[in-house]
Amino acid sequence: MINNSNILLVAGTHGNELNAPWLFNEWNKKPSLIELFDLKCKTILGNPQAIECCKRYIDRDLNRSFSDELLNDIHLNDLEVLRAREILKLYGPYGELPSKIVIDFHSTTAVMGSSIVIYGRRKADLMLAGLIQHRIGLPIYLHEEDPKQTGFLVEKWPCGIVVEIGPVAQGLLDKKIVSQNKLVLETCLDEISKFKLEEINYPEKVYVHSHVASLDYPRDDSGHISSLINSEMIYKNWIPLNHNLKIFELSNRSKESETLYENLTPVFINEAAYMEKNIALSFTKKETININKAHIDSLKNLISNN
Amino acid sequence: MINNSNILLVAGTHGNELNAPWLFNEWNKKPSLIELFDLKCKTILGNPQAIECCKRYIDRDLNRSFSDELLNDIHLNDLEVLRAREILKLYGPYGELPSKIVIDFHSTTAVMGSSIVIYGRRKADLMLAGLIQHRIGLPIYLHEEDPKQTGFLVEKWPCGIVVEIGPVAQGLLDKKIVSQNKLVLETCLDEISKFKLEEINYPEKVYVHSHVASLDYPRDDSGHISSLINSEMIYKNWIPLNHNLKIFELSNRSKESETLYENLTPVFINEAAYMEKNIALSFTKKETININKAHIDSLKNLISNN
Repeated sequence: MINNSNILLVAGTHGNELNAPWLFNEWNKKPSLIELFDLKCKTILGNPQAIECCKRYIDRDLNRSFSDELLNDIHLNDLEVLRAREILKLYGPYGELPSKIVIDFHSTTAVMGSSIVIYGRRKADLMLAGLIQHRIGLPIYLHEEDPKQTGFLVEKWPCGIVVEIGPVAQGLLDKKIVSQNKLVLETCLDEISKFKLEEINYPEKVYVHSHVASLDYPRDDSGHISSLINSEMIYKNWIPLNHNLKIFELSNRSKESETLYENLTPVFINEAAYMEKNIALSFTKKETININKAHIDSLKNLISNN
Repeated sequence: MINNSNILLVAGTHGNELNAPWLFNEWNKKPSLIELFDLKCKTILGNPQAIECCKRYIDRDLNRSFSDELLNDIHLNDLEVLRAREILKLYGPYGELPSKIVIDFHSTTAVMGSSIVIYGRRKADLMLAGLIQHRIGLPIYLHEEDPKQTGFLVEKWPCGIVVEIGPVAQGLLDKKIVSQNKLVLETCLDEISKFKLEEINYPEKVYVHSHVASLDYPRDDSGHISSLINSEMIYKNWIPLNHNLKIFELSNRSKESETLYENLTPVFINEAAYMEKNIALSFTKKETININKAHIDSLKNLISNN
């Protein structure tokens, strides 16, 4: 009999995001640091070889390597594709030590605070993110319909969320970021534990910022970034775009604001790792999603034991 | 006849410090962005191959590769040692396009603000740093007597200073940091230009923070960092150590404070790139150095044309 209540906790999916791996290591040394509630959790490092080098990745972004296209390409042996296959074989929903829920801990150079990212509108994800939001008010970025960004780790489990915390530089240990990670992790486990025991008031609504578009930096003819993000703008994640504030220092702001970005809310403003992905920031729109019995049951089916 | 008034400006000595290279590129496209005063300046990228990879370095830290020991080791062909030899051959004080003064622009993840670093007590360095401090008040870190940290680029020119600005994440372009770079660069050039024309009031004193010791993170038996820098401490660069404030979250602070670090001033607190060098922060002591005719003449000899 497989115990489906196992939860997989992943840190260091990007090898230069060191704070969650540090927390996991402390936890492994002193399990009392994070109470385990009534859940069986497994912690793993996503990309140990990249962590060793303190690089985001070795061959390709591990957190874009979980698409079926890459996983099933037998000619592809990039380090991260091999690691994605291995993680699924060991800890995937049908792996040797199976989990139905995964929580993947990331950090960002953007001034995002503590936040949750979900991919698409799977009911169990919305339920879990909603529980955490209901408890400690984190904003949720609902990433969807973005053909340029696919193959995220958590998508391969029936329920999976990303915890995204910043700002912190890559390759830097920061006590505050570790503490934020710990709070979100404890909240996740506590909420799942209470949910399992049905000792919980379900939120009626979950508030999400759903993905609309990403915007690149202005570039010159040679592809070089020609204008930087306005300094004030850096602090405006989760805040609807103010039409008087320039996004980029030198670009034609009025033209932008009158078209695509009106009433939208930026996220991931100036994330260092996204420069190579041609993303200066992303735009989202606020949505309220009503939680109903289908959301509750969807998560319940994954948490209750078979 | 060699024109000794040439000034070498270096950016991207570390390949993941992108703001000064970005400024240099803008400058090269639009020279009017930074007035050239009455000086001949040459801008170069320190480590173009590391910039391409957005890594601090490929084989070894370029800014520790300018020691005679490494430069003269004919068996050593690390990329950065080759580049150090090339830079000296091309732009060194006796190179093909010789310069007598070098200014090397760096950024840091530490909350240092805009600052100057000099290596040892060369009179011309103290004079140049003093001119900039006199004009815009920057703090000066005088790095010396540290056998673990040698081979800095600027040491190979008769006069050379490092400009160090933070906090900014590695691999991140930040408008504010670019602006700070531009201000310091313009100030350097303006002060040198006025100094050359003798249109200047010399400062009587220069205030420096001279290096005393570096402190590693507490580590466990396996070498893993076991305690992080206290969150409040992160903001205390350039401020004499407060005995009530713990440096590390879990270490025995009273023992530390009563011995080595009493009355000392920390710098480079939690610089990401120094983790691999086993440096959590460095301690300095404040000193006042009187500027005399020897300091003035030392810089004057380098600036006036032969």
